[in-house]
This record gives sequence, C-alpha cells and structure tokens, in this order.
Amino acid sequence: MRTDLCDLLGIDVPIVGFSPSEHVVAAISRAGGLGVLGCVRFNDADELDTVLTWLDGATGGRPYGVDVVMPSTRPTEGVPEDLGELIPEGHREFVDRTLLRLGVPPLSGEPRPGVLGWLHSVARSHVEVALRHPIRLIANALGPPPPDVIAQAHDRNLLVAALAGRADHARSHAAAGVDIVVAQGYEAGGHTGEIAGMVLIPEVVDAVGVPVLAAGGIGSGRQIAAALALGARGVWMGSVWLGTSEYESGPALREALLRASSSDTVRSRIYSGKPARLLRNRWTEAWSADAAPRPLPMPLQNLLVSGAHERLMASGDPSVVPMPVGQIVGRMNAVRRVAEVMSDLVTEADETLARLPKLL
Amino acid sequence: MRTDLCDLLGIDVPIVGFSPSEHVVAAISRAGGLGVLGCVRFNDADELDTVLTWLDGATGGRPYGVDVVMPSTRPTEGVPEDLGELIPEGHREFVDRTLLRLGVPPLSGEPRPGVLGWLHSVARSHVEVALRHPIRLIANALGPPPPDVIAQAHDRNLLVAALAGRADHARSHAAAGVDIVVAQGYEAGGHTGEIAGMVLIPEVVDAVGVPVLAAGGIGSGRQIAAALALGARGVWMGSVWLGTSEYESGPALREALLRASSSDTVRSRIYSGKPARLLRNRWTEAWSADAAPRPLPMPLQNLLVSGAHERLMASGDPSVVPMPVGQIVGRMNAVRRVAEVMSDLVTEADETLARLPKLL
Repeated sequence: MRTDLCDLLGIDVPIVGFSPSEHVVAAISRAGGLGVLGCVRFNDADELDTVLTWLDGATGGRPYGVDVVMPSTRPTEGVPEDLGELIPEGHREFVDRTLLRLGVPPLSGEPRPGVLGWLHSVARSHVEVALRHPIRLIANALGPPPPDVIAQAHDRNLLVAALAGRADHARSHAAAGVDIVVAQGYEAGGHTGEIAGMVLIPEVVDAVGVPVLAAGGIGSGRQIAAALALGARGVWMGSVWLGTSEYESGPALREALLRASSSDTVRSRIYSGKPARLLRNRWTEAWSADAAPRPLPMPLQNLLVSGAHERLMASGDPSVVPMPVGQIVGRMNAVRRVAEVMSDLVTEADETLARLPKLL
Repeated sequence: MRTDLCDLLGIDVPIVGFSPSEHVVAAISRAGGLGVLGCVRFNDADELDTVLTWLDGATGGRPYGVDVVMPSTRPTEGVPEDLGELIPEGHREFVDRTLLRLGVPPLSGEPRPGVLGWLHSVARSHVEVALRHPIRLIANALGPPPPDVIAQAHDRNLLVAALAGRADHARSHAAAGVDIVVAQGYEAGGHTGEIAGMVLIPEVVDAVGVPVLAAGGIGSGRQIAAALALGARGVWMGSVWLGTSEYESGPALREALLRASSSDTVRSRIYSGKPARLLRNRWTEAWSADAAPRPLPMPLQNLLVSGAHERLMASGDPSVVPMPVGQIVGRMNAVRRVAEVMSDLVTEADETLARLPKLL
C-alpha cells in the first residue's frame, strides 16, 4: 500500500501515528510510518528538548513529527497560581467530594502542576524547541498554527498539518497554508467534533486541494482501506498505540483499555474544557450527574482536575482512570508491539485493496 | 459492483433504500436496488394494504421490502385518548408556549392522531398485511422481530433484517434467526446509536455470520466502496432519498434539507422518545434549552408532539420543520430523480473499486 503521502513524508506506508510516548513514536517511524510526538504534556520546554534529542537517535534516521496545541482562540494566559484564582470554589469542592466518594486515596507527595501545553506561550516554546530538531512535520491539534509558525516551518522545508472536524475548518486551514489536513471524526479519542468519519472524510477531501489524512476509529487494515476509498491519502491513528507494549502505562490503565467495549467512551468537556472523547467510567459518570458543575473553559478545567487525574491514575483502580481514547478501544484486546500492529495493519489493508476489485 | 447480497435478494446492485414514500421505494427497486417501505406512518393497516397493492404493480415485478417498528421492550399500549392521560400537563404547556414563541400558526382543521406504528399491536398489523403481498424482506427498525414473525417470514421464504447500533445487539439478532443485520452508525438519520460506522461496521461484521449492510452517512459511491472495504455486503440508505423528486415534500422541508450542512443535525429523544437524529433547527434548539422538559418515553413523546409536528410542517417555515435525517444531509444540494442518484452511486462505487488496487 502506497500513496503520494509516502513520497511527501519520506515514509513507506501512509500511516501517521500520534502518541505522547517517544517510545511509541520511534517504533512507528522505524516500522515505516511517521511517528508524531504529542507535546502538550511538556510543561518544561527543556524536557521536550531532551526527549527530541533521544528521538533523533531512536528513529534511526527515519522521519518523525511533533504535535502541538495552539487553539485558534487563545485561552487565558497566566501561571498556574494566578489562573487558579479563576476556578470557582464549588468546582474544587465537587472534585474533592467526588474523589472521596470514589474511594481514591490522596497522593503521597506533592501533585504536579496541570497541563500547560494548552497555553499559547507554552505551545510556542514547543515549536521553538522542535524547530531545532530534524523533524519532518509539525501538526496542530486545534486549528491552523499561527502564520509565522507556518512560515518558519516552510522556510525549513517542513510540512504543516492541522486537525479539522468540519469541512469549513479544513478550508480555513488550507487557506492559511497548511500542507496536510487531518479529518478527525466524532469516533476519535481526545478533542473531536460531532461529524462521523464516514461523512467527514469525503467532505474534507472535496473541500481542500491538499492531501487529507483520515482520523478517528481506525485500528485495522480494513479501516485504512475504507479511508482510502473515501479519498484520504493515508490515516492518522492515535488510540491504538495505547495498547502497545511500548506505551508505558500502569496495570490499571492497561486493564481498563483491554476490557472496554466500543460503547465505553464518552465525549465530554471535563478533561480540558473542550469536547474530548474519554474512556467512560465512574469518574466521567460523576461529572454527568445532574448535580455536577459545568466544566470550566480551557485551560482552567485541566488545572482544576490535574491533581485529581494524578490521584485517579495513582489509585490503581481501572474503573476511574482518566484517559482520552476513541471508540476503537473496543478492538484493543491484547497488548502487542508497535511493529506487530504496523505489520498487521499493512497486511490487512493490502488484502482488502486486492479483494475489492473482485466485486466489480 | 456485485456481492452475494444481490443473489440473496434478487437485485442488481447491493443498495437497499429505505423510504416512507412508496414512489421512492418503487423507483429504487426499478433501478436495480431493493426499495424498503417504512410502515410506521400507517396508523391504519388498510391504508398500508392499498399502498402495497400499488407497489406490487409499480415495482414492475422487481423485489421490494417493508420496514416495521417492533421495539424489543414493548412500549405502553393503548388508544391515543388513554395514552394522552399519561402526558404531564407541563409538557403540553411547553409545546404550546414554544409553538407560540416560534410563530407557528394553528392548523385550519383537526390534527391527525400521533404515530401509532410504534405500538406493538399496530406494528403487528403491518406485518399481517405485508405478508399478503409479494415482499422479499421484512426489516425491523428496533431490535429483532418476535420469533413467530421470523418463523412466518421464513415459512414464506422471505428474508428478515434487523437494525443494530451495537455488536452485542447484532449478535442477539443473529441468534434470533435474523438473516441480514443492518449496522447503523451514529451518523445515521432517525433512531440511531452512539457508535460511528467506521468502528461499528467491522465490529458487527466480525460478530455475526450473516450478511451485514452498512447504514449511516452513506450518500456516494466512495462511501459504498468504504462500506464494502469494512466488510459489509451492501448498504442501507435512507436520508438521501429525501432529496429526490419522487419524495413528495413541501417547499419548506426541501429548502431546509438543501441548505443544511453536515453540522445541522442533532441526536435527540424529542421525536419519538428514543434517541433519533433530526435536522437541527429552532424547534430542536427549543428542546435543548435548560428550562425545557425531558422528553417522554416512547410512544408518549410522539403523541405529545404529533400535533406540533403537523403545525410545524404546515407553517411553511424551513427553520422549524421536524425531520429525521442523517449527517449526509450536508451533501444533499440538488433535487434529483432516484434513477439518477442510483446511477451516480454505482458509477462512483465502481470507479473507486477499480482505483484502489492501484495503491498496491
């Protein structure tokens, strides 16, 4: 299986794999796809620099990319302490009460600060660091990157990608100079829109002149072939790598992912303040109760729940882990190596592409 | 394009087209697909009998089917007058107040009774009538038909289909003796589940041994090819026919459908009491306001709003028409004849199936 995306990115198969884990990213690139590192978790740009330096070696000279989060409408800026004053006391009380009711123990040490990668200033520091490394692609998860970032990327002969959940957003991205649009359907994990891939992908393909990657719900070669039938030049996959052995997670998260069905996700604003698909569990259910407060806007909501996230993760209880994941989680039923997942994807996609003309 | 579904149903192309309009159904069957008549609108079984007699001639000897609605959990039975007493006064007041606020005039004559086809007794009368006609398929929109209906259909050598929005439901359908499962994704119009087609279709294909039709979001040949890539043996299409010249609708509905984008639908319980995707407009927005009452269970909700539906339709205002439709409404941008739609679907699907192996 090969499309013009392979030439554009210098890869063997048109599979782009997003992960916050550098180990997953390196394995995807080494297996012939394009690994893309999610940067939002790096509050400290120096830490990102260290990880990218590791990746420069671990990818063995194969191309890789980075994913930053620069929302088109800039969220409130500020240090965590000042932003914290914007969080209503009732929200904090609800979080404390819920953790108590769910039986989640306190942390032994100090909590880390919340995710700051959604702040424009922090995201820009990610870009500055990334541009010092031999990356092939900068992707932006929420809208097109600012014009000067696109210009800097193009000056260095890098490609710029942006995620879109609607055709009109995709058109804006292309008009802003984005080279690749990722059409991400409702079924996807993390930040996602309301239009399902079956409708969204051909709509975006017809709306823009640039290559389109299909994202959302893709975890098998048949789904890759379907995406290509819809006009995509390749796929963007995220959730599936959470079930690989390279993704370092505790046993609670692993168990929760392995036993979840495709019905066990929910699209909610409780993670970041913007709608994102999450594993459905006792924590997400608590927030959908009638008496629960409304989630706060980005970036306040994540600052509100970041300490809770750490406690939920540390609890070792699979029924409360806070985790963005797509509906494809229902097919993640065994832990496998990235290389094995990649090989199966390509084999099944090839078989499907070969099978279809027999229906003519 | 041809699959084993064509032999099973005696049709030329693996396209099953659902419509409440007998004119659409006849045109789909004449064009080589299988037209399926939605029966839920027939409160009077004799009226259905008359329409099926017309279809027996108008299909020109080509196969056709019927779709009835027999929920797996039987809704409350009763005549509209008795059921009406179960509707809270506050709900009636909200409907009256909303119609006034939206500027919807009263009807000149008496309103018709609400849709009774969701009552088990009425749905069974549909089946009795349909079995007297040369139908090829009985489909049930909400779960598998009762065992005696499946037995009667099989005695007459008819096929039985059932819609499923989850793999476990599909498994139950197949275990009950259903011959064809329709895997209907989140993006579909009318009653629909939460799992998008990209994830649902291969999940259902792998869960059951019987042929699977893909439903939800399908309006082009590329989407048919994608459904076949996902393992479906054909497609089930509903929304697209609302935009054909054979579908008799007033100018307000037509205008609303033509100008809607894929973002202009909403999944809500306000139409029937069960979650159904509808055109989003001032009427659906009124029901999502904080002060709006919660929709009633099936069949009470439709009895509550049936008079309102008639007034909204008669108003001639495109911004209030109550209409189940899928996200594919965004691609319905011109009124065309059914035969032309069918021809374009087949041409584009064939082109796509021929294009894909070149990517190998």
